[in-house]
Amino acid sequence: MSKELVFGHQSPDTDAIVAAKAYSYLQNKLGYDTEAVALGEPNEETQFVLNYFDEPTPRVITKASDEVDSVMLVDHNEHQQSVSDIEDVTVTHVVDHHRIANFSTSSPLFYRAEPVGCTSTILMKMFDEYKIEIPAQLAGLMLSAIISDTLLLKSPTTTDDDKAAVIALAEIADVDYKTYGLEELKAGTNLSSKSEAE
Amino acid sequence: MSKELVFGHQSPDTDAIVAAKAYSYLQNKLGYDTEAVALGEPNEETQFVLNYFDEPTPRVITKASDEVDSVMLVDHNEHQQSVSDIEDVTVTHVVDHHRIANFSTSSPLFYRAEPVGCTSTILMKMFDEYKIEIPAQLAGLMLSAIISDTLLLKSPTTTDDDKAAVIALAEIADVDYKTYGLEELKAGTNLSSKSEAE
Ligand SMILES: [Mn+2]
Ligand SMILES: [Mn+2]
Ligand SMILES: [Mn+2]
Ligand SMILES: [Mn+2]
Repeated sequence: MSKELVFGHQSPDTDAIVAAKAYSYLQNKLGYDTEAVALGEPNEETQFVLNYFDEPTPRVITKASDEVDSVMLVDHNEHQQSVSDIEDVTVTHVVDHHRIANFSTSSPLFYRAEPVGCTSTILMKMFDEYKIEIPAQLAGLMLSAIISDTLLLKSPTTTDDDKAAVIALAEIADVDYKTYGLEELKAGTNLSSKSEAE
Repeated sequence: MSKELVFGHQSPDTDAIVAAKAYSYLQNKLGYDTEAVALGEPNEETQFVLNYFDEPTPRVITKASDEVDSVMLVDHNEHQQSVSDIEDVTVTHVVDHHRIANFSTSSPLFYRAEPVGCTSTILMKMFDEYKIEIPAQLAGLMLSAIISDTLLLKSPTTTDDDKAAVIALAEIADVDYKTYGLEELKAGTNLSSKSEAE
């Protein structure tokens, strides 16, 4: 099996970065050869999360077809939100929680979407289904993605699945999600205030 | 939750009819209110299957929007293969094993596709994931769909998942899948020979 890249959307948020790491980890456990990359630099919130859980910043790419033939998308599916040369590679897998639009393939693929608050919530279920254990550090990252996408379970897109995932992941990561979550969201807000000030 | 219709593609094959029945059964167990319908009369193979397992022929519809606001698609996603007024209803769920094309939604949805030989193979996994038991009669129908789509596990689209599903479903349905499968495929061939003769 040849190597595939896994990535979230352009202008990545925490879910786009983290879901790529989580899905790449899962797929490698299942026998694929993947690398999680990003389509842009992490924002301040995501950088806080990566620092907090001592996780390296993913490599940023702008093209995929010079490295691989096939890719896996997380947290997006629309071509205009994806890598610039998305039309030149084969999409073999998608895990997402958005509407489907401006997306098509010439072959059957693995596609997993659910109308929940965060891609990492779906990934949490997939780890369960495949009976793959989530390491504590990765659980911390996935928890952070759900906190980010659901604004600490307060956004109208929040579902019971997101709540259950947050509780389970906080347990594995051994963090108090409420205290940690406020810190994380504050780290993201710093960016907005700075941008406003600039 | 208001009622939704579940259906496969136009000119239905055995998988299109059976996957609608199986997904409707699963979703009703999960608390949805659904009815499996079809976009055309069953072919001879499918009629053999329905007779064999003493299962009623599904109601045929040509429009959905006069009955429901929302629908669930199985064994297809492309609009031109779907109900005539697909643009007038909301697609909330899709379970399929084909490429994605000519499909889009305005809201997030549940989408489950895998590159396997038959929709009923994916549904078998979903029953497992949700820990819902498959009744013997329904197992016989799902087995028949996989036999039909994979030509008794001989087609190039056949995967290990299809093989595993056939063995598990044959066990639940308590049929010898090789003997039964040849009978089923022969029932379908009757149609072809007749059409050639006509
Ligand atoms: Mn995102
Ligand atoms: Mn997201
Ligand atoms: Mn079909
Ligand atoms: Mn099929």
